[in-house]
Amino acid sequence: MSDILVARLRSALGDNAVVEDADVLESHRNDHATFCAAGVPRVLVRPSTTAEVSAVMKVASEFGVPVVAQGARTGLSGAANAIDGCILLSTARMNRILEISAEDQVAVVQPGVVNAELSRAVLEQGLFYPPDPSSWEMSTLGGNIATNAGGLCCVKYGVTADFVRGLEVVLASGEIVRTGRRAAKGVAGYDLTRLIVGSEGTLGVVTEATLTLQPAPEAALTAAATFLSIEDGVAAAAAVMASGLRPSLLEFLDGPTARAIQNYRDMGLPADVGSLLIAQSDRGPRAAEDVAQIAAICTAHGAVEVAEASDAEESRMLLEARRLVNPALEPLGVTLVDDVSVPRSKLVALLRGIAEIATKYDVLICCPGHVGDGNMHPTVIFERDNPAAQERALEAFGAVMELGLALGGTITGEHGVGLLKARWLEDELGPVSLDLHRRIKQAFDPAGLLNPGKVLR
Amino acid sequence: MSDILVARLRSALGDNAVVEDADVLESHRNDHATFCAAGVPRVLVRPSTTAEVSAVMKVASEFGVPVVAQGARTGLSGAANAIDGCILLSTARMNRILEISAEDQVAVVQPGVVNAELSRAVLEQGLFYPPDPSSWEMSTLGGNIATNAGGLCCVKYGVTADFVRGLEVVLASGEIVRTGRRAAKGVAGYDLTRLIVGSEGTLGVVTEATLTLQPAPEAALTAAATFLSIEDGVAAAAAVMASGLRPSLLEFLDGPTARAIQNYRDMGLPADVGSLLIAQSDRGPRAAEDVAQIAAICTAHGAVEVAEASDAEESRMLLEARRLVNPALEPLGVTLVDDVSVPRSKLVALLRGIAEIATKYDVLICCPGHVGDGNMHPTVIFERDNPAAQERALEAFGAVMELGLALGGTITGEHGVGLLKARWLEDELGPVSLDLHRRIKQAFDPAGLLNPGKVLR
Repeated sequence: MSDILVARLRSALGDNAVVEDADVLESHRNDHATFCAAGVPRVLVRPSTTAEVSAVMKVASEFGVPVVAQGARTGLSGAANAIDGCILLSTARMNRILEISAEDQVAVVQPGVVNAELSRAVLEQGLFYPPDPSSWEMSTLGGNIATNAGGLCCVKYGVTADFVRGLEVVLASGEIVRTGRRAAKGVAGYDLTRLIVGSEGTLGVVTEATLTLQPAPEAALTAAATFLSIEDGVAAAAAVMASGLRPSLLEFLDGPTARAIQNYRDMGLPADVGSLLIAQSDRGPRAAEDVAQIAAICTAHGAVEVAEASDAEESRMLLEARRLVNPALEPLGVTLVDDVSVPRSKLVALLRGIAEIATKYDVLICCPGHVGDGNMHPTVIFERDNPAAQERALEAFGAVMELGLALGGTITGEHGVGLLKARWLEDELGPVSLDLHRRIKQAFDPAGLLNPGKVLR
Repeated sequence: MSDILVARLRSALGDNAVVEDADVLESHRNDHATFCAAGVPRVLVRPSTTAEVSAVMKVASEFGVPVVAQGARTGLSGAANAIDGCILLSTARMNRILEISAEDQVAVVQPGVVNAELSRAVLEQGLFYPPDPSSWEMSTLGGNIATNAGGLCCVKYGVTADFVRGLEVVLASGEIVRTGRRAAKGVAGYDLTRLIVGSEGTLGVVTEATLTLQPAPEAALTAAATFLSIEDGVAAAAAVMASGLRPSLLEFLDGPTARAIQNYRDMGLPADVGSLLIAQSDRGPRAAEDVAQIAAICTAHGAVEVAEASDAEESRMLLEARRLVNPALEPLGVTLVDDVSVPRSKLVALLRGIAEIATKYDVLICCPGHVGDGNMHPTVIFERDNPAAQERALEAFGAVMELGLALGGTITGEHGVGLLKARWLEDELGPVSLDLHRRIKQAFDPAGLLNPGKVLR
């Protein structure tokens, strides 16, 4: 049957778009998640058009074969990992920017367009596509939509979902549906666009997206402040958010993260650093004033050192510490990045609790995060090739999510559920919501062919 | 059976919360929509708690009786109209603001809280709840959520959905589900919050909402400009939107609307006025500069008169024309307010087409609207007690929606579908999306008890 399946795919898409080569399949089994099982795919398809995606789904439906859609496989939760015997559906060839309209302030794109490519193309026309996940130079807009990707900009501009106006989606049946609209506002029918954004390939395959653009802001200016405690840094962040200043970036690094960076490269941080806060304003002529006001707020909240950039180059340097988080943590061991998001009033409790979890499980946990959104990335770090350490790290990872839930937060602020967090999703949702989720999945995909086992176990 | 139904409701809610009085029932049959059928309800219930709403839904499920949830019945599409034999579920007694948190910038409210009441309560703490439908002094937050209400603020701040973080919802089964979160960001599971917002009481009864607040902006300043053509006014609006200024209000009045206002009260508008543009900026110290820049843009686009307010009182006066739209149109005949939303690049085509429709069907159509969002309210006005005129008006009303769809727009930007537009919704969605809508409805409400016949026929 399998040979017939591949023959049917070849006949629909052409030989060139259907790959059975074992090495290629192997290289497409995983996304960037750690500790997530990946199956052995049957075949990889690379459709170029919506009609070809539809043809793939019709063949998959006929043969009852699961389909896993993949963008750049930069996801962190295993949502794009292969399933045994599945069709991997790569959107790599659907990589055209179909339209950029300055008048309507929208872009129409295929799912395989890389985020940075769109961002640069619209900037040439004085426009701005805000969503900026840290993978933006690699990740595709289709992947960003599937995971409702966040980033540094969210504190001012919101997440990917806030910039998706409409979608073209191929359903499990192969039927093609358009959701949403090109107009700025609309309330006709249920919000299928938002339902599909963040659904991690379990409800349909996005084949086109209409995205909201804004006039490009001017270059941002940066302030950075060093505190001796977690409490002071968090309190300063809360005061910035309460001030009405609307920073375009507001990042936090806890003491262990700051010390790891200082060990990696001398940034002049004191050995007893408790936390670092980095903020930006992109309000053009007002940015310098904003940054001065942010600096004053930090000083008033006990900052022991505050730096204000007066130009783009100084701004870049002040952001350097944030940029060095991954390179600085990587040499310390295996990293397992969590993604809890809590109400801002619970941030100190979260950070204190994480320190206790690190002690209890005897692991290092560094905690950088998007403090303006209450979205932290506690990163559990443990010794390579040490099964006992790995076991403790996984327990700590789960304890962090349980702490986040206990504080009224969520297990994932922006990375998604995928395989990695499907177990904890059940805790977060509870039985009534979980049942509703299953019924919605059933409404879209009665045979369960789209990314089965992801999000919902 | 009916007597048993009422007895069961009385036993669950207490006599005081169950109303069978014919006059009260009569007064609760309709919302503010015109030309929408309303049935005769069996009983009106006024639950005070989520548990009581759940009890009502359990009784309704047991007896197979439809339930229509009602807020203040200020909706414009018949979504809150009674159905023969239904239980009307009023949220009027669930009118408590449960929490306002300055630190987390959220409010937790019951559905019966009036929008203006929340807006004023949060303002006392220096906070801001932006959604401002024109009904805001009367309409409830539950109703705003059910219809995803818009308003004047949308051009800068977005619609109601953009401010709903999480909901508590009673399902048709009586089960209680919580959606979303209190944290600013979260991607755990499907976006049930957004699915329920705007679903017009067809998927569940909202019993609590967690809403996003912002720091309050300073008082806005206003600019108003008069143009001799539609084209100039629309082009000026487009230029304002392209400028990056982020006006907090950008309203348009076409020639017929402006003339009706001038006839109602002398605003000094010229007889050959083609369009009026009214804009605001609420950027505090920068508002005066913004308003000057908007005025300059209007002048550059052919405005024959431009006024800039230098204080709140002048700002109020310049907004007066917008405020007089309803009182000025009301004496002219029966008004039938449409709500099409198109990409901004299609606004001139929409306005020209509406003028042709007015001629073809021999009716007056005045067209005010939220031009920054492309969301217009073409208002068909016709002679009272004239069945032929009414017939022509209804045809013109439909033709306006068809024009909006032909221009890539939507039949409703902010008023909702209800009964009034259920027929045209089918044109907008098409068969695949319509089928998906029905399956989602089925997933939530298998017996079809929640507001049947609304949105989906």
